[in-house]
Amino acid sequence: MRTIDLNADLGEGYGPWGMGDDAAMLALVSSANVACGGHASDPETMARTLKLAKAHGVVTGAHPSYPDKEGFGRRRMVCTPAEITHFVAAQVGALVAIGALVGQEIAYVKPHGMLANVAAEEAEVAEAIVNAVAAVLPGRGILAISGTVLAQVAAARGVPVYREVFADRGYTAAGTLVPRSQPGAMLHGEAAVRRLLGFLESGAMPVVGGGTVALAVDSVCIHGDSPESVALARAVKAGFAATGVAVAAFAA
Amino acid sequence: MRTIDLNADLGEGYGPWGMGDDAAMLALVSSANVACGGHASDPETMARTLKLAKAHGVVTGAHPSYPDKEGFGRRRMVCTPAEITHFVAAQVGALVAIGALVGQEIAYVKPHGMLANVAAEEAEVAEAIVNAVAAVLPGRGILAISGTVLAQVAAARGVPVYREVFADRGYTAAGTLVPRSQPGAMLHGEAAVRRLLGFLESGAMPVVGGGTVALAVDSVCIHGDSPESVALARAVKAGFAATGVAVAAFAA
Amino acid sequence: MRTIDLNADLGEGYGPWGMGDDAAMLALVSSANVACGGHASDPETMARTLKLAKAHGVVTGAHPSYPDKEGFGRRRMVCTPAEITHFVAAQVGALVAIGALVGQEIAYVKPHGMLANVAAEEAEVAEAIVNAVAAVLPGRGILAISGTVLAQVAAARGVPVYREVFADRGYTAAGTLVPRSQPGAMLHGEAAVRRLLGFLESGAMPVVGGGTVALAVDSVCIHGDSPESVALARAVKAGFAATGVAVAAFAA
Amino acid sequence: MRTIDLNADLGEGYGPWGMGDDAAMLALVSSANVACGGHASDPETMARTLKLAKAHGVVTGAHPSYPDKEGFGRRRMVCTPAEITHFVAAQVGALVAIGALVGQEIAYVKPHGMLANVAAEEAEVAEAIVNAVAAVLPGRGILAISGTVLAQVAAARGVPVYREVFADRGYTAAGTLVPRSQPGAMLHGEAAVRRLLGFLESGAMPVVGGGTVALAVDSVCIHGDSPESVALARAVKAGFAATGVAVAAFAA
Repeated sequence: MRTIDLNADLGEGYGPWGMGDDAAMLALVSSANVACGGHASDPETMARTLKLAKAHGVVTGAHPSYPDKEGFGRRRMVCTPAEITHFVAAQVGALVAIGALVGQEIAYVKPHGMLANVAAEEAEVAEAIVNAVAAVLPGRGILAISGTVLAQVAAARGVPVYREVFADRGYTAAGTLVPRSQPGAMLHGEAAVRRLLGFLESGAMPVVGGGTVALAVDSVCIHGDSPESVALARAVKAGFAATGVAVAAFAA
Repeated sequence: MRTIDLNADLGEGYGPWGMGDDAAMLALVSSANVACGGHASDPETMARTLKLAKAHGVVTGAHPSYPDKEGFGRRRMVCTPAEITHFVAAQVGALVAIGALVGQEIAYVKPHGMLANVAAEEAEVAEAIVNAVAAVLPGRGILAISGTVLAQVAAARGVPVYREVFADRGYTAAGTLVPRSQPGAMLHGEAAVRRLLGFLESGAMPVVGGGTVALAVDSVCIHGDSPESVALARAVKAGFAATGVAVAAFAA
Repeated sequence: MRTIDLNADLGEGYGPWGMGDDAAMLALVSSANVACGGHASDPETMARTLKLAKAHGVVTGAHPSYPDKEGFGRRRMVCTPAEITHFVAAQVGALVAIGALVGQEIAYVKPHGMLANVAAEEAEVAEAIVNAVAAVLPGRGILAISGTVLAQVAAARGVPVYREVFADRGYTAAGTLVPRSQPGAMLHGEAAVRRLLGFLESGAMPVVGGGTVALAVDSVCIHGDSPESVALARAVKAGFAATGVAVAAFAA
Repeated sequence: MRTIDLNADLGEGYGPWGMGDDAAMLALVSSANVACGGHASDPETMARTLKLAKAHGVVTGAHPSYPDKEGFGRRRMVCTPAEITHFVAAQVGALVAIGALVGQEIAYVKPHGMLANVAAEEAEVAEAIVNAVAAVLPGRGILAISGTVLAQVAAARGVPVYREVFADRGYTAAGTLVPRSQPGAMLHGEAAVRRLLGFLESGAMPVVGGGTVALAVDSVCIHGDSPESVALARAVKAGFAATGVAVAAFAA
C-alpha cells in the first residue's frame, strides 16, 4: 500500500486571535507545521497547539518565519544570513522547549511564507536556515518545496530533506509554483484531488499550459489557513481511501 | 583555597540599544545571566553575548523575565502559573538554541527582576518556573536568592539550587533584601567589599540596624546594568585576591 | 420618541487576524468603540475600520487599553498615572490621525477591558485617563460605565460623560457588574432584551438577587467580540422597534 | 545676519534604553526630529523628550520610520503606499497627542533612515508620506534632503518643504549623498565645519572627486546618535559664531 504524508500549517493564532480550524485539520493530517512566534503564535498558543497535536497523534514540525506578525511573514525583510540563522534558531528553540514541557517532539522544520519563497531560490538564505536546523535539531530534517534550492542545499549538507507538493497550487514546466497573481495558480475541490491522485500514481505533475513535470514527493501540503482547507483535506483523504493510499508521517 | 562564583546580568541590550559594559564585566565574573527576550535582548544580541561569554570562558545561564521590554521586566504582570511556565520555557529554549549555534551551553536559569521578586515569595510562581527549568534543561539548576521560596521549591523538586547574595544590597534580619525605597538598601564601594569579605569568611550577613543573619551562598551577584558595576566588580576581585578567595563558576 | 445610543467594541483584529463581524455590527449600532493599538489593531486595521464605520454612518470613539495584545488588555499592568496618561494619549492620537486621513472624526473615548475596570474604581487611574482625553480631544467626552469613579472624575473635571449600561451583564444592588465568575453575571437572548426594555422604560435596573438599582444611561453596550453579539444586537433593535425606541448616537 | 536651522535626530531611546546625549544636543540645535515609535521611542520616551525640548526652546518635528525597532528603521520593508501612509499617520498622531499633553507643538515631519532614503528616490513612497502629513498636520511642512524626490513631491502638492544638508556627509556631483560604504562618505571635525561654512557662504557644496554642486538649504543636520555628534555640533556653532551665522528654527 502506497503511503504519503499530509501536512498543514497550524497553530497560527496569536494571543486572543485564532486562525483556521486546527482541531478539524489535526483529525486529517499526519504532520503539522506549528507556528513558533515569527509570523504567528506565542507561548500559550504553542503549548495549546502541541497538546492538541499530541492528542491527535500528529507529528509536529517547527514553522519559522521572518519576524513579522502584522505582515504574517508574507513580506520580504532585508536580513543578513546571520540574522536569519539566529531568528530561525530562536523560534525553533522556543517551540522545542514548549514541546519538552508538553511531551511532544519537534521532528522537522518547514520555513513559512516569504522565508520559504526566498529560500527556494537563494542559496545564501537556504544555507542560513540549514545552519540553524543542523545546530538546533541535529539529525532532524527540513520539509522543503520539491525541487527548490533549499532542498538542494539541505541535501548537500547531509540534512534530511522531505519534499512537498501543494494540492491546490498550479505548477509550471520548471516545477515551480504559478504565482498567485497568474491564471492557473489555484486549484479547487475535485480538480485538485484528481490531479493529486494522478500525480501520486505517476510522479508526473500536470503543468499549467499542458504537459507534466517530474517531482519527488514525501508530503502533500494542504494550506491550513484557507476557509476551504478542511473541505479539501477531507476530499483528498476520501480520494486516498478510494485509491489505496495511506496517510503516514514522513518523520514518524 | 576558598572559591566562590561571581555573577552578573548581561546581554541586556535590544536591537540597536546597548546596556552596561558586557566585555568589561565578562573579564571579571565567572557566571553571566544572559537576557533571552523577556525584559531585553533579541536573537542578534543573544548570539553576540554568548560568543563574547565563550571567548571569556564565562559560564552562561538563562535570565528569563515577564515579557515586558518597555518596563524592563520590573513591573508585575498578572499571569497564570501555566502562562509563566510557558513564557519561561520559550525564552530559555530560544537561548539554548542560540547557544547550540555558537557552541556555548546554558548551564542554569536565574529569573530576572520582578519575576525573581515574586518567585522569592510565592510558591505557585516558583513552581511555575521550576516546572519550565526541569522540562527544558533537565539536570540543570536554578540560581536563586538565598533563603527564598524559589530556593525551597526547587530543592523540594530535586532541581539543583545555587544560592546568591548581593554585594551591594542591604539585608534585613529575616535575610531578605531591604527595599530600594528604604535607608540602607544600597551599599557602595569599599563598604560593600568589606561586608562581603566578612560574610564569606563567617557566613553571617550583617543586617541593617545591627546584628547578622546566616545565609547560604554559592554565588555573589554584581548587578550588570549600574554604572558602578564594573568598579564594584573590580574592587570585589581585588578583595578576593587579598584574602585568598578564588572566583570559580558553580556550574563549571 | 425615546432615543438611545447603541455601542459596540469593534476593529479588534490585528494584522492578519480578525475578530467578530464588524460589518454586521456596524449595520446595527450608532457608536463604535474602535481599538487603537493597545489591546488590538494596527494602522491598517484602524484605517479599514474607520472607513467601514464612515460608510455605515456610525459615530466612532477611541478604545484605548493597557498595551497588551497577547492578553487582549484584560490583565492588569502596574503603571504609574503618568504612564497611563501617556499611553492613552498615544493610542488616541494614532486613531485621530488615521481618522484625519479617512475623513472620520473621533468623537469620544471609552477605555477598554481591565483599564476600564480599574478606572471604574480608582480615582488616580480615572484622572490619568481624563487628563489624556482633555488634552488630546478637547471638548470631547468619555463613555463610562454608569455610576463609576471614572464617570464622577470626568464630570468633576468638566469633561462630558456618557453613561453606558450592558445589555448582557447582571447588576448588583450597588449598581456594579456581577463578576464573570459569579452566577447571574451574563444574560442571554430574550431575557436580556426584556430586562433592557424595562430598564429603559423605568430607569430601574433589576438586580441579581432581587430589587432594582437606579442607573443613568446614555448608551447601551453590546459586546462586539462574542459570537452572540450580532444576534443580541438584532434582538435589541427589534425590541426597540416594537416599543418605540430610536437608536441615535450620543455624540452625533 | 545670515540665519540657518540646525537639526538633530533625538528621543531615540526605547523603554529602559537610551541613545545619545539629548540634553547636550538640545542645548545646541534649533530643531529636534523626535522619534515617534517606529524605529525607536514609546509614550514615556516621547513625553520626556518633548518636555526637554520645550525646556530648551527647541522646535520639534516628528521623525516617523518603517516600524522596525530591532533594525532601527534601517532595513527596507516591502509595504504598499497605503500601508506607509497609515503607519506614518499613526506615528505622527501619537507624537502630536503627547505634544498636546506636554504643551509642545509638532511643527514638521522628517522621515527617518531607510524610509527617508526610499522617499528620496521613489515618488510613490514620497507621495505616501506627503499624504499622511497633509492630513494629520495640515499647513505644516516636511524636512527633506535637499534635491530629492520627496522635496519635489511635497512642493508639487503645496506642502511646505525645508531642505537639509548634512554637516558630516560627502556629496556627489548629482547632489546625492556618497553611500556610507564608499570613500569620502564621512567628514569629521574641522574639515566638516570648514566645508559647511564655505557652502553656507556660497551655496555651492564641494563634491567628492572635485567641483561643487548647488544645493538649496534651510537646515543643517547633525546626526544625533553618533558619539561625535555633540562635539561636531559645538564646532559647527563655534564656526557660525565666528562667521556671523545665527541659528534659528525654520519652523519657529
